[in-house]
Amino acid sequence: MTQIEGTDAGSFADLLDTSGVLDELIFVSVDDHIIEPADMFEGRLPAKYQDDAPRVVTRDDGSLAWVYDGDEVTSMGLNAVVGRPPEEWGLEPDRFEDMRKGCYDVHQRVNDMNVAGVLGSMCFPSFAQFCGQRFFRTTDKDLGLAVLRAYNDWHIDAWCGAYPDRFMPLGIIPLWDPQLIVEEIRRIHAKGAHAITFSEDPYKLGLPPLHDHHWYPMWAVCEELEVVVCLHLGSSSSLPATSPGSVIETSQTLAPLSLLSTATEIVWSDFLRDFPNLKIALSEGGIGWLPYFLERCDYVYRHHRHWTGTNFGDKLPSEVFKEHVISCFIEDRPGLVLKDDIGVDMICWEMDYPHSDSSWPAAPESFAPSLPHLTREEIDKITYENACRLFKFDPFRHRTKAESTVQALRALTTEDDLLYKSAERLRGKGVMHPTADALTSQFVSR
Amino acid sequence: MTQIEGTDAGSFADLLDTSGVLDELIFVSVDDHIIEPADMFEGRLPAKYQDDAPRVVTRDDGSLAWVYDGDEVTSMGLNAVVGRPPEEWGLEPDRFEDMRKGCYDVHQRVNDMNVAGVLGSMCFPSFAQFCGQRFFRTTDKDLGLAVLRAYNDWHIDAWCGAYPDRFMPLGIIPLWDPQLIVEEIRRIHAKGAHAITFSEDPYKLGLPPLHDHHWYPMWAVCEELEVVVCLHLGSSSSLPATSPGSVIETSQTLAPLSLLSTATEIVWSDFLRDFPNLKIALSEGGIGWLPYFLERCDYVYRHHRHWTGTNFGDKLPSEVFKEHVISCFIEDRPGLVLKDDIGVDMICWEMDYPHSDSSWPAAPESFAPSLPHLTREEIDKITYENACRLFKFDPFRHRTKAESTVQALRALTTEDDLLYKSAERLRGKGVMHPTADALTSQFVSR
Repeated sequence: MTQIEGTDAGSFADLLDTSGVLDELIFVSVDDHIIEPADMFEGRLPAKYQDDAPRVVTRDDGSLAWVYDGDEVTSMGLNAVVGRPPEEWGLEPDRFEDMRKGCYDVHQRVNDMNVAGVLGSMCFPSFAQFCGQRFFRTTDKDLGLAVLRAYNDWHIDAWCGAYPDRFMPLGIIPLWDPQLIVEEIRRIHAKGAHAITFSEDPYKLGLPPLHDHHWYPMWAVCEELEVVVCLHLGSSSSLPATSPGSVIETSQTLAPLSLLSTATEIVWSDFLRDFPNLKIALSEGGIGWLPYFLERCDYVYRHHRHWTGTNFGDKLPSEVFKEHVISCFIEDRPGLVLKDDIGVDMICWEMDYPHSDSSWPAAPESFAPSLPHLTREEIDKITYENACRLFKFDPFRHRTKAESTVQALRALTTEDDLLYKSAERLRGKGVMHPTADALTSQFVSR
Repeated sequence: MTQIEGTDAGSFADLLDTSGVLDELIFVSVDDHIIEPADMFEGRLPAKYQDDAPRVVTRDDGSLAWVYDGDEVTSMGLNAVVGRPPEEWGLEPDRFEDMRKGCYDVHQRVNDMNVAGVLGSMCFPSFAQFCGQRFFRTTDKDLGLAVLRAYNDWHIDAWCGAYPDRFMPLGIIPLWDPQLIVEEIRRIHAKGAHAITFSEDPYKLGLPPLHDHHWYPMWAVCEELEVVVCLHLGSSSSLPATSPGSVIETSQTLAPLSLLSTATEIVWSDFLRDFPNLKIALSEGGIGWLPYFLERCDYVYRHHRHWTGTNFGDKLPSEVFKEHVISCFIEDRPGLVLKDDIGVDMICWEMDYPHSDSSWPAAPESFAPSLPHLTREEIDKITYENACRLFKFDPFRHRTKAESTVQALRALTTEDDLLYKSAERLRGKGVMHPTADALTSQFVSR
């Protein structure tokens, strides 16, 4: 399998497949990320909030930060490392000029998608945090709501609107009020959004747990409008950890598996059974653990339902889960071998640009080892058809399929697009043997 | 798949396979449990501690409890439900006379193993807690050590010693002092123990984390004497939970996956690489999540090692893990389909008698759905050969293989052995729709 190994070379070119096996495939990623550009809020807030809008400042060490609601926030570091030599990665705050422009510039993003041969993308926030929890924490909730709506307007109109054949809109919601949530979902749905990002574990944010009926108005409107609810790892402002002092790789290993806890909460909750057409996506959760998990749920159900009184009617927990839950992966051979245990119609593919886990630019290549386990029909479902169907994304109103393949998109780019983006300023500044505490503390505070 | 479904009938007889497909197989379980009998400490403590020995009392409601070190402790309930109608299961404390005698009587245990067609068993403590943490918490540590040694003597001499062809000894250790740990391991190894039970997460017990070099003397002596270190779910006196108020099935679903965090801590720790011949067992952890987990570890390693400095030499994390870690399952089709990703030589089978997750008496039957995915050679490794090799268990010094098969052992039992054990006292006393909080609070306190 082609991987980013060593970094003496200055180009990713040798990671790309030349056998042609991927050429005709089409890829749509349901999990990428925007590093919000500094000017995104300009002209998008009511006049009375203009002075309170989030703004970017340069700090003494040259790094950048957002200033908002009395806080100074960095949201970059490992989130924006794509295309940089791995030796220069680290937890240090970053600057726009140290990143690939595709992190924050939509035109350059489309070019980087072309470099990877990827047609479509759904992008999560960074400064706003994975499910917009930044604005839930805003002291003045009216300001928070205004900024949240400005984010959604910018995201839908400016970012996705610039390339409707390339981006699927993903809205954030005012977590603090179910009625406001319903109103915002109706508003952004009318603007073309068919997905929202919500928290994997709202209880950790100080809100009622996922299973609480408090959220029923949200599930109801999402079911009614066929809006997918995406739960992204980290959207509880926390990451799994093993123990103090363990190396950073422990948290990185477990990060997707925070959604295992979410999946558990969901499968046993009333709301899946009460909203039969609701769809939930476990964003960046991986899929290889699902066959085990679903067998385990059914095992627990069969062993305990006689005394607990839990009742799934004529179905098993695994069956109810598979009707509702969209599972998502970056690279996951075990899950694709056992795809029938998961349900081929509910598996979607991810690139995770520009995070450290991203497979860019060899994203289709990271899928190649799984090709022998899948029929062509299954491949198309997983790489793009499921995403298009579930998220109501129809790029082929704007372009032909022949113009959308890995080969066709990569033909639009140049060798220069594959050069490493190095930053002299960051060389040797990484922390060797960092601990997970460093990651989780940055994660929670930012 | 044959499962305990409905409980109108009074016998388990119809759960047993009659096709003959299992008849010639041999099963050794590396995870069962003893409910300690009330007389176990009699005559096993120095005279000065005789009055402080743990003892069993009957409470006003008729239930039993151990009294020790100022605490009154129940350790039964869902831990001793085997063979009872599932409608009568619950979290309520239990009495010896409400259990199958095999929970606490070694002769009846052997008979119940015969009923299931199971040759061998390794048994974890109950009152003493999964890794003997009860004695770590003892106020007077000299008393704690004396009781701990009495436990080990009883376990090795009385329980396992009564049937050396049926039981593998499993020692507990004085968690509070590495030097005492080493001494106790040497002492019980000399008495024939080739395994100890340690904590899945000692940090949660107030001890240094698993990755801490504090534990190096323990790893060193276990490597030297080829003693397997078993880490059982719950041996941190905690269970995973999702959120307050979630149903009890959430904790039951996640319970094995507490060992996913342990596996993560282990794979990135120095000690696996520093003690190349050390063997660790993830007891009751399941195996179906391991292929995903191991792929994830390697993915993290390839993506991050250039800047984190983590170094596995010429191996991958997954390779180091597979050299050291014994994985264990009760029923796990996904893991057995992907057995080559885990390593067929390091997978062991479990029955979990007498806990609520136990497959007794249809334990071999719960393995039957996986037979088509395995060669006969692989089946024998997984059902008994790996356990015998890794835990230095040689029942065939005492008996022939022909006397050890499912068919041969079941032939020693009667239809009456398959009758339900019902308890009028417990009917209708279960809590309907119990929450996970009830389970976890019982679990931590007991």
